[in-house]
Amino acid sequence: SAMESLLGASMTGVVYSLFAGQPLTILGSTGPVLVFEKILYKFCKEYRLSYLSLRTCIGLWTAFFCVLLVATDASSLVCYITRFTEEAFASLICIIFIYEALEKLSHLRETFPVHMHSKLDLLTIYYCKCEPPAHPSNETLRFWRSNGIDVSGITWGNLTVTECRSLHGEFHGPACGHNGPYAPNVLFWCCILFFSTFVLSSLLKKFKTSRYFPTRVRSTVSDFAVFLTIVIMVLIDLGIGIPSPKLHVPHVFKPTRDDRGWLISPIGPNPWWTVLAALIPALLCTILIFMDQQITAVIVNRKEHRLKKGCGYHLDLLMVAVMLGVCSVMGLPWFVAATVLSITHVNSLKVESDCSAPGEQPKFLGIREQRVTGLMIFVLMGCSVFFTSVLKFIPMPVLYGVFLYMGVSSLRGIQFFDRLKLFWMPAKHQPDFIYLRHVPLRKVHLFTLIQLLCLVLLWAIKASRAAIIFPMMVLALVFVRKVMDFCFSKRELSFLDDLMPESKKKKLDDAKNEAKEEELKLGKPSRVDTPKPSSDRADPSEINISDEMSKTTVW
Amino acid sequence: SAMESLLGASMTGVVYSLFAGQPLTILGSTGPVLVFEKILYKFCKEYRLSYLSLRTCIGLWTAFFCVLLVATDASSLVCYITRFTEEAFASLICIIFIYEALEKLSHLRETFPVHMHSKLDLLTIYYCKCEPPAHPSNETLRFWRSNGIDVSGITWGNLTVTECRSLHGEFHGPACGHNGPYAPNVLFWCCILFFSTFVLSSLLKKFKTSRYFPTRVRSTVSDFAVFLTIVIMVLIDLGIGIPSPKLHVPHVFKPTRDDRGWLISPIGPNPWWTVLAALIPALLCTILIFMDQQITAVIVNRKEHRLKKGCGYHLDLLMVAVMLGVCSVMGLPWFVAATVLSITHVNSLKVESDCSAPGEQPKFLGIREQRVTGLMIFVLMGCSVFFTSVLKFIPMPVLYGVFLYMGVSSLRGIQFFDRLKLFWMPAKHQPDFIYLRHVPLRKVHLFTLIQLLCLVLLWAIKASRAAIIFPMMVLALVFVRKVMDFCFSKRELSFLDDLMPESKKKKLDDAKNEAKEEELKLGKPSRVDTPKPSSDRADPSEINISDEMSKTTVW
Repeated sequence: SAMESLLGASMTGVVYSLFAGQPLTILGSTGPVLVFEKILYKFCKEYRLSYLSLRTCIGLWTAFFCVLLVATDASSLVCYITRFTEEAFASLICIIFIYEALEKLSHLRETFPVHMHSKLDLLTIYYCKCEPPAHPSNETLRFWRSNGIDVSGITWGNLTVTECRSLHGEFHGPACGHNGPYAPNVLFWCCILFFSTFVLSSLLKKFKTSRYFPTRVRSTVSDFAVFLTIVIMVLIDLGIGIPSPKLHVPHVFKPTRDDRGWLISPIGPNPWWTVLAALIPALLCTILIFMDQQITAVIVNRKEHRLKKGCGYHLDLLMVAVMLGVCSVMGLPWFVAATVLSITHVNSLKVESDCSAPGEQPKFLGIREQRVTGLMIFVLMGCSVFFTSVLKFIPMPVLYGVFLYMGVSSLRGIQFFDRLKLFWMPAKHQPDFIYLRHVPLRKVHLFTLIQLLCLVLLWAIKASRAAIIFPMMVLALVFVRKVMDFCFSKRELSFLDDLMPESKKKKLDDAKNEAKEEELKLGKPSRVDTPKPSSDRADPSEINISDEMSKTTVW
Repeated sequence: SAMESLLGASMTGVVYSLFAGQPLTILGSTGPVLVFEKILYKFCKEYRLSYLSLRTCIGLWTAFFCVLLVATDASSLVCYITRFTEEAFASLICIIFIYEALEKLSHLRETFPVHMHSKLDLLTIYYCKCEPPAHPSNETLRFWRSNGIDVSGITWGNLTVTECRSLHGEFHGPACGHNGPYAPNVLFWCCILFFSTFVLSSLLKKFKTSRYFPTRVRSTVSDFAVFLTIVIMVLIDLGIGIPSPKLHVPHVFKPTRDDRGWLISPIGPNPWWTVLAALIPALLCTILIFMDQQITAVIVNRKEHRLKKGCGYHLDLLMVAVMLGVCSVMGLPWFVAATVLSITHVNSLKVESDCSAPGEQPKFLGIREQRVTGLMIFVLMGCSVFFTSVLKFIPMPVLYGVFLYMGVSSLRGIQFFDRLKLFWMPAKHQPDFIYLRHVPLRKVHLFTLIQLLCLVLLWAIKASRAAIIFPMMVLALVFVRKVMDFCFSKRELSFLDDLMPESKKKKLDDAKNEAKEEELKLGKPSRVDTPKPSSDRADPSEINISDEMSKTTVW
């Protein structure tokens, strides 16, 4: 239901970005919450309960619990959310993003079946025609009778695919898949669009550090990388003309289902005790929303981002809780801080030094902190209903490609993945991470492995039948981290699991080392005086002092 | 005719790599020679001459002229082939390579037509059936009569594509292209194979400088990048099962056409005077082969390659001439030094220093000079007739992708393209090329523009009706370069158009600068003594001395 999503997101987003403590966070319907809702829907169907009413109950309870959490100063518990929990959670979200993008692409295989082992020579003989069902089921017979359809009067062979489906016909012929005719070209074209979008947006993003064109052109291209990619892809898709699946956008402003209004009763057709029973799932949901909201907030408020304005965990959660209640009553989706979107948002607001030397990594200066971008995003989202004529040209695979790009680019900032890569790196090629300087490699690997194990467990639970306890497991991450205090020394954890920005630590460390070197140098001033050291420097086979020094200056 | 090509290449190659002066050169049927043969074939068809016989005449004359050139010490003229000519020619060949790869891919559009604006809803109604021609031409009627075909007795609708074509039937239906039914999926699958091959082989090649895995694994993967790519692509293609066009390899050892033997008479059905008339095209052909052979030889013998063994321009040309005669008499294609193949061959034999620091460019040490690789290439090429069972699984688009990769990767070593890129680079981002240090940018651009103009002219002539004078134009490049002596000073040309390796020049240059700096340093020893410079070094906002120094040590 695109209409509800757009309305809910726009409403919640506008309120949040106007009143929240940390407007850099972007709200969205996050993976874990969607997983929870899916489980709930399945449960309701099994026990023949009205899903929407039960959901309203749970939503209202959850909102109440959240307000309770705010009142009891529970947000101060975020101090237990360390980098370990945070990165495991963020990685999980990124992986869900990437997985969903790829899954959606592979789902297209069912919508557009491909005749894999077709023989080109038999193309003249291939066909797929509509036929009346050989053994019509009772349901089909009832359907025909109730709609007054004269089966013998239909020329089945001339029916289009939609007509055939609506008349419960069957498809027969060598060019038929198991549920309709094979769709030529569409699937492969979708794959081309998907991967081109991913590659092109990555390339355009990287264009900032290329050598060509003046800085302004480069940064403009880089900033609008995703937008440019979408425009280019839409034009190519239009030019080629293969009927790829397009974005569906609503045309009129009303609830998607006809049997509901804009307000949902919390009891509805359900028995009265469900209102009380909703307490239990509401508790789980509260954990999930609390974790989701706070972890994202912690990530946004990280010291690495050098924010100048304070955080507002309580106010943030309060706004989320209030809007959760409103959304529940109106039957709209729930919105919490979305990790990937927030990270992308913060990244896009980064102020970086103008990099003059090509290839040089630009220096990070800070974040443009304001409420305007967040507000505009959601206002425009609300307005997007009016741009349907343009939006309907966007092929779905292009959007999936953008999701893949966002997932992958979010992974890049996560230390856990840097550490994961270390497994495949010989010691001498490892980058100069601060924790590698102070923690033995064995211990770093152990830390990574525990994190990986947690992640695999979380994924397994999400996919298994016990998915309902998924929120508990996210909470369990915090306890796993506490237990790890026994395996690792405090000093090791301070390097592996601290929020202090890597670069700052390195600077301190380097300053210390330099002071030592300085002493050594002052001890033997005669060496510096003679021309000998300069010849040393010119010889690349010896320890590369200049290389070391250039590293020092970068940090 | 794959059989003739394989036999000719294998024969010529084995002889050449055993006896030639510079066995690092790889022979092949090059672009310009193929262009010449195409023009000749068109000419023969127009004047109803026997192409094969005339070709034998021309080939024998050309061989004679080449021997004459060897006898008159004409190879010493290679001193006039400077970097200018050489790079213009090499660029032309690379561009022909890339162009042909893309052209062949786009030609697949005709073999596998795609129904561009098809409606998925009408798939049940789409068909393409064979039908008897509505208005059979006289030729068709004669064909039917002479083969005793009873047209009315055929059930046309059940014929396959090949059967329909062989019976001169016509294709009718909404799923028919202009020359047969639309082939679903094949074209897009070919595009995917083509670009994946290109991207994958580029990535695998770059893997050498990545941080992962030990050096040995990385260099193995990098060395076999193209082979690995082909294997991976063949497996994927087999797994997907789309009937992509495969490599056609002969099964039996005999000339492709039945009306010819392994020996061709130089006169044959042509009038006797054609033997003398063949002198004129033979002269053109000689220029072409001489230029092609010598330019490639010059490129291979470049000082940059630090070859230890001497060159052998005369011996090389003699071998080419002898084999040219043999090939002409046997009706096999002509083989000359192939620029792209030779560059790739030389590159693959490079000995590089083990790069210990990740990302550091490995240092070039020299070329493994021997005859074995060249010999083995051609022996294996001859043996490839026995591997037909494996080779026939290789999809053509994968091979086109490899061509594209070879063309693009050959471009990388050409200075002309480095200079072309300078047009889009702001001055401060330009790499540290030696000619940029000594020649004003304006002059560099002028030099590049003249070279570009020559290239565009060559391309235009190749494509125009005057294509027969193409060999002359290649020769004209040398004169253009001579004329340029008036626009540029000797010093400028020595930097822009010299074969001295860039790195060596830079080293000399740097050594000079360093000596100067040294003097300055010795002049004020007090500055180095105090701790002040070290704090300077740590401040990245000032002029980055350490960065400058690390550059110095790399060269």
